Amino acid sequence: MRQPAHGGNLAWAAALAGCPPDAILDFSASISPLGPPDSAIAAIQSHIGNLRHYPDPSYSELRLALSHFHELPSEFILPGNGSAELLTLVGRELAELAATVVMTPAFGDYYRTLSAYNAQLLEFPVNWESEADLSLFLDKAQNLKEVGLLLNNPHNPTGKLFLRQSILPYLDQFGLVVVDEAFMDFLPPEEEQSLISLIQEYENLVVLRSLTKFYSLPGLRLGYAIAHPHRLSRWQLWRDPWPVNTLAAAAAIAALQDREFQQQTWLWLPPARNQLLGGLEAIPGLTPGKGAANFLLVESKESVSHLQQQLLKHHQVLIRDCLSFKELGDRFFRVAVRTQVDNQRLLTALHSVMSSEC
Amino acid sequence: MRQPAHGGNLAWAAALAGCPPDAILDFSASISPLGPPDSAIAAIQSHIGNLRHYPDPSYSELRLALSHFHELPSEFILPGNGSAELLTLVGRELAELAATVVMTPAFGDYYRTLSAYNAQLLEFPVNWESEADLSLFLDKAQNLKEVGLLLNNPHNPTGKLFLRQSILPYLDQFGLVVVDEAFMDFLPPEEEQSLISLIQEYENLVVLRSLTKFYSLPGLRLGYAIAHPHRLSRWQLWRDPWPVNTLAAAAAIAALQDREFQQQTWLWLPPARNQLLGGLEAIPGLTPGKGAANFLLVESKESVSHLQQQLLKHHQVLIRDCLSFKELGDRFFRVAVRTQVDNQRLLTALHSVMSSEC
Repeated sequence: MRQPAHGGNLAWAAALAGCPPDAILDFSASISPLGPPDSAIAAIQSHIGNLRHYPDPSYSELRLALSHFHELPSEFILPGNGSAELLTLVGRELAELAATVVMTPAFGDYYRTLSAYNAQLLEFPVNWESEADLSLFLDKAQNLKEVGLLLNNPHNPTGKLFLRQSILPYLDQFGLVVVDEAFMDFLPPEEEQSLISLIQEYENLVVLRSLTKFYSLPGLRLGYAIAHPHRLSRWQLWRDPWPVNTLAAAAAIAALQDREFQQQTWLWLPPARNQLLGGLEAIPGLTPGKGAANFLLVESKESVSHLQQQLLKHHQVLIRDCLSFKELGDRFFRVAVRTQVDNQRLLTALHSVMSSEC
Repeated sequence: MRQPAHGGNLAWAAALAGCPPDAILDFSASISPLGPPDSAIAAIQSHIGNLRHYPDPSYSELRLALSHFHELPSEFILPGNGSAELLTLVGRELAELAATVVMTPAFGDYYRTLSAYNAQLLEFPVNWESEADLSLFLDKAQNLKEVGLLLNNPHNPTGKLFLRQSILPYLDQFGLVVVDEAFMDFLPPEEEQSLISLIQEYENLVVLRSLTKFYSLPGLRLGYAIAHPHRLSRWQLWRDPWPVNTLAAAAAIAALQDREFQQQTWLWLPPARNQLLGGLEAIPGLTPGKGAANFLLVESKESVSHLQQQLLKHHQVLIRDCLSFKELGDRFFRVAVRTQVDNQRLLTALHSVMSSEC
């Protein structure tokens, strides 16, 4: 079986570990360990009887729920079959410009979608040193109106959070700014740096959001784009009329209203992330970076491929290697933050594997 | 609310009928009234716990199930988020050719996908007179290697079935032949005219199939393409890595193995279709056409828009108008074949509405 290019490929991991996929403790996919919320599961159950009908092609109820959640008119919202589906439409949009600036290391699917439409790529390394600054170091005199910017905030895989005001100047410079905020909902309301509130001011802004990471429903596929209605109408013609399945739409409506689950997540994450960060720092040979989202990027003195295999074979624990991020290679891995019990299992397994290697 | 361009828009119909969507008897979407099969519902229920994981991006189990079902190597099979998603990839493929021949009247989404990629369109009317012949009346000397053919078999909305041997010559003439067989599974094995068995002989053949009509799961979204592995690998790069949700994959695997449900469907359809055809023929002003699939196209002396509204308001019965098929307009409607009890309710409602107009 081929090495997976994305996290969360349990079929591959289970074959290597020699156990059923259920037995794998998965740190490779950056999914919340708290979900799915009971409210979403109940909504799925109660809508199974509706599968015999087509989904409403305007997804009115879902868009209304998102409209309430973000305090935005629903014409600015387009649901998709995971934010991954919407990223493909973004690729087509960006390919119409002369070039697109991408921050590296970048999520593998950015390259896929940009090359699917022969978009010209300009790679800029993320500034690891500065705290929350975008620091693109652009030539201020350059005309960027024919250039797009594809950003990830918080950035994956580094976990770096760019402050809203550090992105703002680029909205005036670039022809199109796409901000993939797939992990932004993990930040509590007082810390988040979303650009959604600016959408009615900037016609050249697109924000992508995911509902499957925070609510632990990646198998159901649900994301949405927030952008100017003209742009979203155009995208509608580029894809089929019923991209979102009935159960995903129902689960999303329930999850968005589940304020208790949202609060629990914001209470769980900071201490669990601190525990994991501290534990990783204490392991000789590992240097974890700080991260604002629900995952941490870790530098390793040893080969990560080897470490990954040992963890699978001896502990049924899966970490995300970074071979698909060409700037990182075999000396980095990414781990999701899970419950404190799970995090401890990872730390113990890492200790055990790394000390047996010495 | 805007008039829907597709069947099955119950939100629109319910608003017009002044009743909840559940109360509408829907003849507008060509979905089997027998499903979903219990086997598929049980598979959905038992996989809800897996929603916390990403789907396997290679969809190995689903492709294996389809491979057994069609007795084909699994590399020739690509699952999609409904055959509608795959139709968009077909549009991109066809747009690379000089032009595409489409049989009219044609499913509205053919126009959408072809224009999304600026494909050149050549429209040929379906020959209503001939029994099962494709009869494109092409100039035999013409070089069609740079031209594509997009066919629907059985044809929607006429229900006409083209015999396999009437399509065969076009496989040698055209650069690419795409056959949308969304309704082919409604024909029993001894009558079906699928081209799937020829897929390994013709690199220029693509067959699209749906699982949501026969198994009554349009809300779940599931279809697949059958084509040469080279072509399917290319399509993979044009779309996101996880287009099919976990529950759709599980339901499909269960449904494909449900031979009892398949037999029931083939036993139900011919007598129910005959009953509906006979009943429609007996209503003055209506002329139904014969159809090979689970729907009938009906010509009406009266305005269909008016008839549709009366049926909704007075009987909560929804028929599919044909305004989205520009060759048909307001003098045709399409109805799904349902159970004999439901069919009788439609016939009674039609009698009542049409006699009160006289």
